[in-house]
Amino acid sequence: MEQLKNKIVDEGTVLSDTVLKVDSFLNHQIDPELMQEIGKEFTRRFEGEKITKILSIESSGIAPATMAGLYLGVPVIFARKRKSLTLTDHLYSSTVYSFTKKESNEISVSKDFLKKDDVVLLIDDFLANGQAVHGLVDIINKAEAKLAGVGIVIEKGFQAGGAEIREQGIRVESLAIVDSLENGEIRFRDEDPAQ
Amino acid sequence: MEQLKNKIVDEGTVLSDTVLKVDSFLNHQIDPELMQEIGKEFTRRFEGEKITKILSIESSGIAPATMAGLYLGVPVIFARKRKSLTLTDHLYSSTVYSFTKKESNEISVSKDFLKKDDVVLLIDDFLANGQAVHGLVDIINKAEAKLAGVGIVIEKGFQAGGAEIREQGIRVESLAIVDSLENGEIRFRDEDPAQ
Repeated sequence: MEQLKNKIVDEGTVLSDTVLKVDSFLNHQIDPELMQEIGKEFTRRFEGEKITKILSIESSGIAPATMAGLYLGVPVIFARKRKSLTLTDHLYSSTVYSFTKKESNEISVSKDFLKKDDVVLLIDDFLANGQAVHGLVDIINKAEAKLAGVGIVIEKGFQAGGAEIREQGIRVESLAIVDSLENGEIRFRDEDPAQ
Repeated sequence: MEQLKNKIVDEGTVLSDTVLKVDSFLNHQIDPELMQEIGKEFTRRFEGEKITKILSIESSGIAPATMAGLYLGVPVIFARKRKSLTLTDHLYSSTVYSFTKKESNEISVSKDFLKKDDVVLLIDDFLANGQAVHGLVDIINKAEAKLAGVGIVIEKGFQAGGAEIREQGIRVESLAIVDSLENGEIRFRDEDPAQ
């Protein structure tokens, strides 16, 4: 997605060979017009899939997921993160390890909002090691719902998550894939010209 | 806002005389079309105020704030919540006590995104005791920015927050004010017919 890549180049900060900071439009400050375009692009890519729900995770997934939900015409659920869960009776939950924060969180979704007949699109801001996606897929499996695919705003193509998830036969659509941050330079993967 | 009140009546659950659960469209599952209408309504109410930024707080404030940002044409910042902050150099921060969770959180905003010449609209999902709004106002004051007003999706009119904030001369626009949850019945405050 050209508009997104331009924004990453213009405003992203390369903090190291593995860390890209996009706090000015995605993770702390949000650019609502860009989120709208991102929502439309996810819609364009997934609109044939008969999606009934979008599942995301707090906090940075919420804005792009809400915009995708608007244009796909479906509700959006955001999984809650907690250090530990005490009441789990009415929740589907999973454990997600964050390499960035070096801590595990329980993520959970109320059983009220995810049902067997749901066809679910996962949306998240970043895909790196894929821990959050694995946790969300686990929740969808526990609910016996169907996974339509995964929509990611920025994938770090040099980390293992995307390849691992695709190897499971899951469709992953990343709007920008960063293949390298070496020498402070952001290099994107060449897009499939068919897309 | 009639559409919101209808949604609260149809889908809200009164858990006690003080607790209203709206997990099906605002706090866990999100109704994107309702959020869009909420964004438009905040825009209608505040569009004369020359707002340059919206400030909200993770997580449930993000969806309505992003939609308001879209129609007001301004960026949205969401304050981050943390148990404690270690690096505070480049942050404006404040302490917010949650009566619901009985814990204090540090909320913070990067100094990069809030400047002296900003005119800020605060948006949050709920206003009850007003702790989150007080924390966000504190951050705006620390940044020496100007506060244009506060936009709230659902105000609990029987709790002290709204009255206290209005007494400080701050404009508060709540799209639905619940005056009582007694006997399991949701009673709304009569709207000003001029609005």
